[in-house]
Amino acid sequence: MSLLQRTVDAVERLPDAVIEEADARQARLTKPLGSMGMLEDIASQLCGIAGTCPAPVPQHPAIAVFAGDHGVHAQRVTPWPQEVTLQMVASMAAGGAVVNAIARQVGATVTVVDVGLASAPAPAPMLRERNVARGTADLAEGPAMTRAQAVAALEVGIDIARELVGEGADLLVTGDMGIANTTASAALVAALTRSEAAEVTGRGTGIDDAMLARKTAVIEKALCRLERSDPLAVLCEVGGLEHAALAGFLLGGAAERVPVVLDGVIAVSAALVASALCPRAADYWIAGHVSVEPGARAALDHLGIAPLLDLGLRLGEGSGAALAVPLVQSAARILAEVATFDGAGVTRA
Amino acid sequence: MSLLQRTVDAVERLPDAVIEEADARQARLTKPLGSMGMLEDIASQLCGIAGTCPAPVPQHPAIAVFAGDHGVHAQRVTPWPQEVTLQMVASMAAGGAVVNAIARQVGATVTVVDVGLASAPAPAPMLRERNVARGTADLAEGPAMTRAQAVAALEVGIDIARELVGEGADLLVTGDMGIANTTASAALVAALTRSEAAEVTGRGTGIDDAMLARKTAVIEKALCRLERSDPLAVLCEVGGLEHAALAGFLLGGAAERVPVVLDGVIAVSAALVASALCPRAADYWIAGHVSVEPGARAALDHLGIAPLLDLGLRLGEGSGAALAVPLVQSAARILAEVATFDGAGVTRA
Repeated sequence: MSLLQRTVDAVERLPDAVIEEADARQARLTKPLGSMGMLEDIASQLCGIAGTCPAPVPQHPAIAVFAGDHGVHAQRVTPWPQEVTLQMVASMAAGGAVVNAIARQVGATVTVVDVGLASAPAPAPMLRERNVARGTADLAEGPAMTRAQAVAALEVGIDIARELVGEGADLLVTGDMGIANTTASAALVAALTRSEAAEVTGRGTGIDDAMLARKTAVIEKALCRLERSDPLAVLCEVGGLEHAALAGFLLGGAAERVPVVLDGVIAVSAALVASALCPRAADYWIAGHVSVEPGARAALDHLGIAPLLDLGLRLGEGSGAALAVPLVQSAARILAEVATFDGAGVTRA
Repeated sequence: MSLLQRTVDAVERLPDAVIEEADARQARLTKPLGSMGMLEDIASQLCGIAGTCPAPVPQHPAIAVFAGDHGVHAQRVTPWPQEVTLQMVASMAAGGAVVNAIARQVGATVTVVDVGLASAPAPAPMLRERNVARGTADLAEGPAMTRAQAVAALEVGIDIARELVGEGADLLVTGDMGIANTTASAALVAALTRSEAAEVTGRGTGIDDAMLARKTAVIEKALCRLERSDPLAVLCEVGGLEHAALAGFLLGGAAERVPVVLDGVIAVSAALVASALCPRAADYWIAGHVSVEPGARAALDHLGIAPLLDLGLRLGEGSGAALAVPLVQSAARILAEVATFDGAGVTRA
């Protein structure tokens, strides 16, 4: 049996009894029930994932940035040159990118994974070389990946999740780097949420009207040839190598019983693939934020996951998910550490 | 000249030149301009407050929880007994409340200030005894405070801001505790934003329809006797001692050139008072979140400050503001630490 199939099979339903115990504990804490809003739901989810109430507070968040290049770059869907993917990978490996700054603030590690860069990056301690292909083919012209490539990239993501958990990570955080990857993301979202391309295609890093029209047209055309009911086929046709790896990472985290914080539109489009392959895996995911890319909201709505942050972010790299890490930790900490009415001698309403 | 007047006079306009320098630096960082959304504005604001670009990353956040009781409790506007204010103060001083758990997560100190408790709390290291009055009078029957009490409580807030900054705090965070204080907050918001009581009165800790109707009627009646153009008179008539102290804390932070993170409806209603006394002080404030209380959104809109978080919170204590601390720190850190296009050898779009 393949690693992918074994991973899907290993994802367990969250135990109802533990979640009920968490909800009951929440009601005994010295605060009005419901007054911590979304953090109360996150706390119960973390208990379900940990299989115990209260859940331990995640202390070792690990961000994995999956990097890949995109053949669709040739369609002029972005003003950024393709070499920027490699340049930004080098900058991340040197600690100079936005995700590194946030990671230092929240105490997270950053691991950069070359799963699909067009050129090999210089070796660096933070970088893991797992290249499956030197970029995808142009999704405007035909399938972006072969099925073998997509599965290999999925398994890279599974492996990275397992490695990071093996190294002590107790909270996984998705990141991505890939010039033109919002095009692939919008195509995945349109295909898997059955939306129109125009509804879910956005300006990415900030493109003008003419470029947006071209980007939308490229996606519309690609959607025509899709068999939308086969998620792996959709991934091969219009996805990126980092999308495949992210989907694997999301499944790998769930199989390891570790929560995964989703970043923006790249991550949530990959989550649509992963959830189509294994619906119960979504119980292990937390939406760090909702990006301004329209596909992000569409994907989260489809997944039924509410985002923690909405700060007008559209960077990627894992930046929005990393910013949400202290919220997740606080949610766990409140359930674990706050006094109960009985314990603190506080009168109930 | 009074401490209040000296503090108002000490609040300086943010220097345009430093803010422009911050905006220009933001444009040189290796990311699409605008891609970090609200955090880019916060970063520029922090530079303006610090008077230097990049601003130092705040490393010593300090939460001040101002506690007071309310005569309007007699009108049955809340199901919680009044003694819960004192009980929760004791729990906070012992580290057992939600705000303490979040403070531990984000590395903030918690200082609890008795500015208006109905009974004296037991001494504790985290607690500062600055009682101005043993609770307010019932705002349904007449002025909640005398002018002397309101000014004394404002000056307690100023003093606490100065003390905390003197002890090393470089980011102040507002907190509050006071059973029935959403009633006073809604009255302040209605009066100072010229809204109807029904628009800005909410369910606080979670009250039923009958109690909400009574609460709204109490506020409507009190609003009839107000001279809305005098913010200090409004504060005396319908505010709380903790609202007065919070208003002073907000002015004191601004006078000390330290940013202040606002919590929910109690803090933002106090901010309306402080901003009416000194409009330029609002440049020093950051809205940590928007509470589900309708008055919170109305007050923030009136102040023109966009909230960082919107998590469905309605606890108070400073919990929502404390959760936003890592976002503020990350905003500063990104501007200070991320590589520039030239420095990192990344090609521009």
